[in-house]
Amino acid sequence: MTAFTHYRDHVGSNPDKHFKAMLFQGSMMMVGLNCLEPGQNQPMHDHSSSDKVYIVMEGTGTFTIGEETREAGVGEVVWAKSGVAHGVENKGSTRLVALICIAPPPT
Amino acid sequence: MTAFTHYRDHVGSNPDKHFKAMLFQGSMMMVGLNCLEPGQNQPMHDHSSSDKVYIVMEGTGTFTIGEETREAGVGEVVWAKSGVAHGVENKGSTRLVALICIAPPPT
Repeated sequence: MTAFTHYRDHVGSNPDKHFKAMLFQGSMMMVGLNCLEPGQNQPMHDHSSSDKVYIVMEGTGTFTIGEETREAGVGEVVWAKSGVAHGVENKGSTRLVALICIAPPPT
Repeated sequence: MTAFTHYRDHVGSNPDKHFKAMLFQGSMMMVGLNCLEPGQNQPMHDHSSSDKVYIVMEGTGTFTIGEETREAGVGEVVWAKSGVAHGVENKGSTRLVALICIAPPPT
């Protein structure tokens, strides 16, 4: 199995809810993709025992992390420490693509 | 403390060796930056009990992961599972900037 991939090869969409893909998974971390079409959202949720990071690769998202809500665009890094509620909404006009790492991986 | 940052605000260089920055750290994961000027390298090493991922944000790098050596450019994701030796060399003519996540964080 190769250790190399391009995020773009994993982009997709789902008409009903945000699209998720898994790029790599180890015992300590999962690397994936969250894709949100305009108008879609990922409801607020938390991972009680995992740290998570979003890295915006395309588009913009309105992220809420705990009490903080901000729009983030390409190159921005958004941090959801374990136990902190987080969610994202795509209020833009193009697809939002964010790489995510979750450690340890969700079970 | 904000949960939002732009990777570009953490880019730097070091004439003697590759430049490292830390963006976020939790108990399960660290998010950082590796910046390599042309000609610089990060010698082969492994993290015996951490998974690591590189996400190339600028430039290109020649990555070796275990037995596999490949050049990776912007948008490529390079996976070094725990225990797998890895390193990178910048054979290009511009700075290589890679976001990295290490889980759990190095001690």
